[in-house]
Amino acid sequence: MSQAATKRVVHPYYPVDLVLDHYVPNTFTMKDTLIVLFSAFGSIAVGALILSYQRRQSTLKGLGNQLTFLWYAMCGFIHFFLEGYFGVYHRTLAGDQFFLAQIWKEYALSDSRYLSSDSFVLIMERITAFAWGPLAFYTAYAMYFNTPGRHVAQLIISLGQIYGCVLYYLTTMVEGSPHCDPHPYYYYFYFGFFNIFWMVVPSILMSNSIKHLYRAMKVVHQQETAGVKAKKFK
Amino acid sequence: MSQAATKRVVHPYYPVDLVLDHYVPNTFTMKDTLIVLFSAFGSIAVGALILSYQRRQSTLKGLGNQLTFLWYAMCGFIHFFLEGYFGVYHRTLAGDQFFLAQIWKEYALSDSRYLSSDSFVLIMERITAFAWGPLAFYTAYAMYFNTPGRHVAQLIISLGQIYGCVLYYLTTMVEGSPHCDPHPYYYYFYFGFFNIFWMVVPSILMSNSIKHLYRAMKVVHQQETAGVKAKKFK
Repeated sequence: MSQAATKRVVHPYYPVDLVLDHYVPNTFTMKDTLIVLFSAFGSIAVGALILSYQRRQSTLKGLGNQLTFLWYAMCGFIHFFLEGYFGVYHRTLAGDQFFLAQIWKEYALSDSRYLSSDSFVLIMERITAFAWGPLAFYTAYAMYFNTPGRHVAQLIISLGQIYGCVLYYLTTMVEGSPHCDPHPYYYYFYFGFFNIFWMVVPSILMSNSIKHLYRAMKVVHQQETAGVKAKKFK
Repeated sequence: MSQAATKRVVHPYYPVDLVLDHYVPNTFTMKDTLIVLFSAFGSIAVGALILSYQRRQSTLKGLGNQLTFLWYAMCGFIHFFLEGYFGVYHRTLAGDQFFLAQIWKEYALSDSRYLSSDSFVLIMERITAFAWGPLAFYTAYAMYFNTPGRHVAQLIISLGQIYGCVLYYLTTMVEGSPHCDPHPYYYYFYFGFFNIFWMVVPSILMSNSIKHLYRAMKVVHQQETAGVKAKKFK
């Protein structure tokens, strides 16, 4: 027992008794990691804004549409590439030095379930990466070309994101957040702030889609009722 | 250690080293439990069929609509009452002798996470009980009175049920199903068969709702395009 204990690799994650013997410290500092991450987000945002600017007079009129398009472009990249990397390489992540892995190792200070292959986090992230990821790109496409599938796609992805995020927060909070470094920086900034976007934005977009879909069903409904009445009076 | 081990309450659940010291064996036999459960399901089904029969010539025309109405009535009761009971009393369930608890204790042979308050199962079941439960009743209501909100509600609840069920199956299967008695009766009948309905039926109903909503959006879309063109030619 004591021999095994001396062999244990020391790591900065919570809970402190978590065994992560394949852990290797990041070569990037926290600052480096955040700079890399926000530079990547910035590049995607600039690309999306250049694209959407070309449709500012047609399908993406107004700030709301421009920002929604940007949101789905960002979601597509974050879900598919960043979360997809975790979904595929979760088992070896703690010892991995690829830059996407270093981002996860930094983030995991606020949630060690990403390094311990927690079954819920793993399955939820795989669904997010490989179902909601492509669906985010489709929704951006559907907005850009104004296709009738846009609000159906927007409702599906938004509900998926909200449900995933609610489960994500509550499954550890109900246990007293044992997977999180209690320092406010990690708890409120990484765990809280970084994820809250996937509660707030999809809630707004989902209610927006529900309104559009409800109105369309009402129009069809009224036309059908009018059709039945017309038939009766023939 | 050995003193604690002798004090442990013996139980029939997996994994065998699971600590459930508040466990008390059911007073109902397996047969009793299934008879009670299926009698309750039968009564709800008869009630729903009597209700839906009255609308067989109007809003619930055809076998498909009658069965869908029955499905949502059943889902409403199962989610809200049966799963709601777990959501509220999970902590004491292993020692509880109320008939809903005895159903859970029998079912838990195929998944002990219901007796150990597994954080994912708990949060997922609470959402199922208190969000999808009322929404199932609303969807049945919307079908019965043919309101325009029906397909939006049907899409939301179906996706919620599928996502919950996929996570439910895979979170234990990815670990090799350690929470399940390996006997085929429990694995294939309780764990497999009892839950597969919430994959199959919502998939059919979700694709049905997507079709209806997509068509409605297309109609509105065409009318808007025609409106814009008419304006241009004025």
